[in-house]
Amino acid sequence: MNASAQTHFLKPLFAPRSFALVGATDDTSRFAGKVLMRMLDFGYKGTVYPVHPRAGTVRGLPCYASVRDLPEAPDHVGVVVPAQHVMPVLEDCAARGARFVTVYTGGFNEAGSDEGRAGQAAIAALARRTGMRIMGPNCNGLVNFVDAFAITTSATIAGPRRAPGDRGVVAQSGGGGQVNTMWRAQQFGLGISYEVSCGNSADLNILDFIEFMVEDPATRVVMVLAEQIPDGRRLAEVARLAAEREKPIVMVKLGRTEAGSRAAQSHTGAVAASDVVCDAALRQYGIIRVDDTNELYETAMLLRTRRWPRGTRIGGMSVSGGNAVILTDLGAHLGASWPAYSARTQERMAEVLPKLASVGNPVDFTNAALGKPGIFQHCVEAIAGDENVDVVVPVFTMSPQSDVQQTVDAAARIDKPLALLWIGACNDNPDYTLQSVVAQGVPVYRNTLACLRAVRATMRYGAFLAAFKSGAAAPQRPASIDVVGARAKLDASRGKLTERLSKDILAAYGIPVTREALAADAAAAQRIARDIAQPVALKIESPDIPHKTEAGAIRLHVSGDEAVQRAFDEVSTAARRFKSDARIEGVRVQQMAAPGLELMIGLTIDSVFGPVVAVGLGGVHVEVLRDLAFRVAPVSHADAHAMLRELRAAKMLDGVRGAAPRDVEALCDLVVRVSWLGHDLRDRIAELDINPVLAYAAGEGAVAVDALIVEP
Amino acid sequence: MNASAQTHFLKPLFAPRSFALVGATDDTSRFAGKVLMRMLDFGYKGTVYPVHPRAGTVRGLPCYASVRDLPEAPDHVGVVVPAQHVMPVLEDCAARGARFVTVYTGGFNEAGSDEGRAGQAAIAALARRTGMRIMGPNCNGLVNFVDAFAITTSATIAGPRRAPGDRGVVAQSGGGGQVNTMWRAQQFGLGISYEVSCGNSADLNILDFIEFMVEDPATRVVMVLAEQIPDGRRLAEVARLAAEREKPIVMVKLGRTEAGSRAAQSHTGAVAASDVVCDAALRQYGIIRVDDTNELYETAMLLRTRRWPRGTRIGGMSVSGGNAVILTDLGAHLGASWPAYSARTQERMAEVLPKLASVGNPVDFTNAALGKPGIFQHCVEAIAGDENVDVVVPVFTMSPQSDVQQTVDAAARIDKPLALLWIGACNDNPDYTLQSVVAQGVPVYRNTLACLRAVRATMRYGAFLAAFKSGAAAPQRPASIDVVGARAKLDASRGKLTERLSKDILAAYGIPVTREALAADAAAAQRIARDIAQPVALKIESPDIPHKTEAGAIRLHVSGDEAVQRAFDEVSTAARRFKSDARIEGVRVQQMAAPGLELMIGLTIDSVFGPVVAVGLGGVHVEVLRDLAFRVAPVSHADAHAMLRELRAAKMLDGVRGAAPRDVEALCDLVVRVSWLGHDLRDRIAELDINPVLAYAAGEGAVAVDALIVEP
Repeated sequence: MNASAQTHFLKPLFAPRSFALVGATDDTSRFAGKVLMRMLDFGYKGTVYPVHPRAGTVRGLPCYASVRDLPEAPDHVGVVVPAQHVMPVLEDCAARGARFVTVYTGGFNEAGSDEGRAGQAAIAALARRTGMRIMGPNCNGLVNFVDAFAITTSATIAGPRRAPGDRGVVAQSGGGGQVNTMWRAQQFGLGISYEVSCGNSADLNILDFIEFMVEDPATRVVMVLAEQIPDGRRLAEVARLAAEREKPIVMVKLGRTEAGSRAAQSHTGAVAASDVVCDAALRQYGIIRVDDTNELYETAMLLRTRRWPRGTRIGGMSVSGGNAVILTDLGAHLGASWPAYSARTQERMAEVLPKLASVGNPVDFTNAALGKPGIFQHCVEAIAGDENVDVVVPVFTMSPQSDVQQTVDAAARIDKPLALLWIGACNDNPDYTLQSVVAQGVPVYRNTLACLRAVRATMRYGAFLAAFKSGAAAPQRPASIDVVGARAKLDASRGKLTERLSKDILAAYGIPVTREALAADAAAAQRIARDIAQPVALKIESPDIPHKTEAGAIRLHVSGDEAVQRAFDEVSTAARRFKSDARIEGVRVQQMAAPGLELMIGLTIDSVFGPVVAVGLGGVHVEVLRDLAFRVAPVSHADAHAMLRELRAAKMLDGVRGAAPRDVEALCDLVVRVSWLGHDLRDRIAELDINPVLAYAAGEGAVAVDALIVEP
Repeated sequence: MNASAQTHFLKPLFAPRSFALVGATDDTSRFAGKVLMRMLDFGYKGTVYPVHPRAGTVRGLPCYASVRDLPEAPDHVGVVVPAQHVMPVLEDCAARGARFVTVYTGGFNEAGSDEGRAGQAAIAALARRTGMRIMGPNCNGLVNFVDAFAITTSATIAGPRRAPGDRGVVAQSGGGGQVNTMWRAQQFGLGISYEVSCGNSADLNILDFIEFMVEDPATRVVMVLAEQIPDGRRLAEVARLAAEREKPIVMVKLGRTEAGSRAAQSHTGAVAASDVVCDAALRQYGIIRVDDTNELYETAMLLRTRRWPRGTRIGGMSVSGGNAVILTDLGAHLGASWPAYSARTQERMAEVLPKLASVGNPVDFTNAALGKPGIFQHCVEAIAGDENVDVVVPVFTMSPQSDVQQTVDAAARIDKPLALLWIGACNDNPDYTLQSVVAQGVPVYRNTLACLRAVRATMRYGAFLAAFKSGAAAPQRPASIDVVGARAKLDASRGKLTERLSKDILAAYGIPVTREALAADAAAAQRIARDIAQPVALKIESPDIPHKTEAGAIRLHVSGDEAVQRAFDEVSTAARRFKSDARIEGVRVQQMAAPGLELMIGLTIDSVFGPVVAVGLGGVHVEVLRDLAFRVAPVSHADAHAMLRELRAAKMLDGVRGAAPRDVEALCDLVVRVSWLGHDLRDRIAELDINPVLAYAAGEGAVAVDALIVEP
């Protein structure tokens, strides 16, 4: 990690002392001409070096024929030249000692051609080789409102420079970052610290920029529009840093669908990981995923107040009965609860609302509050003081300025998050608008669902932060894990892992497996059966008989010496009858597990996030309903609990149709151990599928009955 | 139905020749004073009669002491008096021959008191008795932009009267209808025909007002905010009328949650039906349900163009690559598809976009379109002409007026629905805004998800209308239904329906059931067993032994004369041993059905929608996952198919794990027959639960194994 509490390594990229532009021109209808015009209009005060083969002057500034000719090593160079000239220019930049380069030129990975991919690989290699860090290619630069530096063609920064705010924007896309997020937030009155549109990310990628904003004191919330997560482990690190700083990251992550992934591929060359895995990873890391770009700033508006709810209980008040119903219904639908106000709160509100028959939640003012000074302030403070309330939501429709402003004033005095829902407008002062409220730092929403989605996101972030700070979220390696033993067994497998060997490796990780052994003769089979819990199954062991059932060379539910003897003989006879020249290695005697609730626990190695553990109920739950929970490995015991709880069929674990509750603790232990197996052995395994795991009644454990590891 | 193609019976309520206001006052801080002021400001040209006990003049108009004193029978009377005076005033109105009354006064069902409920019941009774129709109580009147008549306190109509549009608004709530929907739509530039806030609906309810707007030529789309559906059958009739007229109804139906239902109860006294049933019924009737009030006008904006998509294929174009990715991903996520453009379309676009490497969908213009006149118009027409495209979605960010206006012009020339997504603003004319587009009748959206949700709603409505017009949606009574026989069996039950009697009633509806009969002796049992398919089950039949398994008085999987004889004896002996004085009526011999896929088919009589049929897979699918599909009975064969398809576990019907596909046709026939049973016998049954229904391989049918009818 290249981070320090003082100055992040990217600071000179965002606020260079000097900036050179290769391809500079006076012609503002051309890309480079537009970048230069916008930069100067935006008020950049550093040294500007236009670079163009024809030299002369550009915008009255002396122009240089090459970066190599510059009088000093520039902090930052912008490059607008045809794709085939990009590499020579980058070599020039490195030779002249430039620290950062932004490559605007397209025609690389997004082109989908071998030539394009080779070009991008060459850029990445140059950055690695020289240490000069590169943004782009195929990007549209950045905007820094804090230090008045902008290098982009975007018309969104035309006109007087807007005041900086404390929200950062990171995007690969130009339009998506600049128009959908930055400009739209500003239109709503929300200030931006930095915006970056980093394109294909041959070298510097969104994680570098997120990290910069998390480290930067000017930024409180980071809004991200991502077409791709470049590196799962790095994301985890950046997210941890953000959690330590209590700086939320809100993200639109594209690629929910195949069609979307293909579109991203042809836009910035982004390669998609599994979206269900990505979704789980973002939640695990406390990154708030939203669906559309407007939700980025809508959510950030509430998050930046840095008041973290302790739970999901809303305290509401409304000047409109109909809106009280809408708020209640949509809130409950999104998982919030509406606790009754405490007796003390009800009394405090009744003091100022004597006409009101009852004080419900949301409290519906109807006409009771009309024209009475101080009522809204009093009620917001009463509600915020209620120990049953985690978030305050006041609703206005067509309201006088003083009613709304009282609420805004009260919002500053309370210590709980408050989201103001203002459906209508001010009916006694047309100049008092939503922007007037925003300007005072109070989150204000136009639509109920948007308001409640932001509230829910903030509640979830509060819960994440609480778990993060408590340490409950930190995975702990369980006792009795024999990594060396497991690796030895993997080495011994020579690329052919059987069910037995897979279960041996599980056993090395302390995971209960059904017992079994190979018997050479009937007497041995009897000894083994006596040794392991009965009943047992007997199966022929022969490389020539892969399908034992078809051959009739399998007997189930066998108990007692005599029955074992008979089963041994029958299985052996059947095998010889099926294939007279079959090589027989013996008869496998396996413990038959008692019936239990069937689950599936799996591991995959995701190309972006690394080892990922999955759990679900067996059979149709996994195969048809895809009812699975995922986490990046390793996971904590609390994570494992949360995984089981988030299954749609979670109720099955509580025991249905008179069954006893299942041993959830034992299941969690299994999930945790499997996750460590994935973490430790991710270089040696591609997949692990334990199916079924049988879960018994609480206190009676769980056992892996069947397992198969697939090597890479 | 009180509807005619000419003038709906409610027209004088909305546009009375004369209006009297009881409680009229000059004091505009009071409710009635505000109503009067707004009405006069709004430009009402009819005769106004202020009514107040103190008479004199109000606003310069002669005031009458009582409605009885009016010089003519008024078309419409508004009533603003304390709750206890409402009934006497209504008696006066009826006596004077008023046609319509609006009661603003609250304190009725919404108060939750016996007194309030009695008061509301009295209002309803008076309306029934006199034929005078009443809106309210506890309401905030109506606004008629078509005829310039408004009777409400709402500040949303202050200032110059807005031009009428073709969207109607029906709400129970004042704020929800007037601010959230009407005013907000108008702020966006969308014109409104009528708005009504009908409150508790003692007599006239939302369905009357929806019907009025469906019948009225001024209205093309009806937007509804409903706290309650007053009458399911009436809703179906109004919805059918709307479908015939191709006038979509868009609805926010509150009461998704318990908390929301309780809130509605205390707001307008609304009583909730089951939300899953309501949701299914709305879909069945082609009513478009949305979540929040802003979605009402966002959806109506596209619907009112009355271009119905034939499918779910979007043709997109974007000036921003990032926005093309967002659009594609969210579109696919919502179920739309992105077909490749036809060769002809690609050629047509390539004519004007020679620089573009490839023409994808969405086509990403990048810089290829910059400054070229006519390109957007040409491309919209090319895309709309593509036979693979059902809906056109062009995306703009920061764009010149001419680019957007070309698209708007093209939208008028094509015959497919077009939704313009404009994330940014006009960069060469600040006066050219979203409202400029709206004013030209072209639907324009600010956010991708909102745009795509409206597109999806319009696609679904198109599919609904196509099915409606084809007649495939119309339920057909199947052959071989013996309603008289079924009723006779119900009559014979005398309130005690057994499994056997329930199955007899199913059989009368042509539903295959497992066969069974009662045997008095072993010889009879053998005869029965030979007669019906074996194996059979034998169970003691005794009113004194309800739990046969506990008594050991049941034998399963019995085949052959000898075994039947033995089972008969064993069951009889076990019964006598269990309870020596038990009354034994014989031994029931039942066909044991071959194993098949287990489903559940049920019927309930919903308090609002009447008989509702449900289907789901058996076991955990119903009990834990609540994976059920509902429809109001009776249903068509196509409905039954759709029900099975919408199950999350629908894939099970295709055959998983090597099982053959199930007999879906037979299952649909069962669902249809059960639905007719519900339709015909809804007065005689409260519930029917067939569980399990066993579905066999395609062509091999399905059978009801266990069934129980519960009488009301």
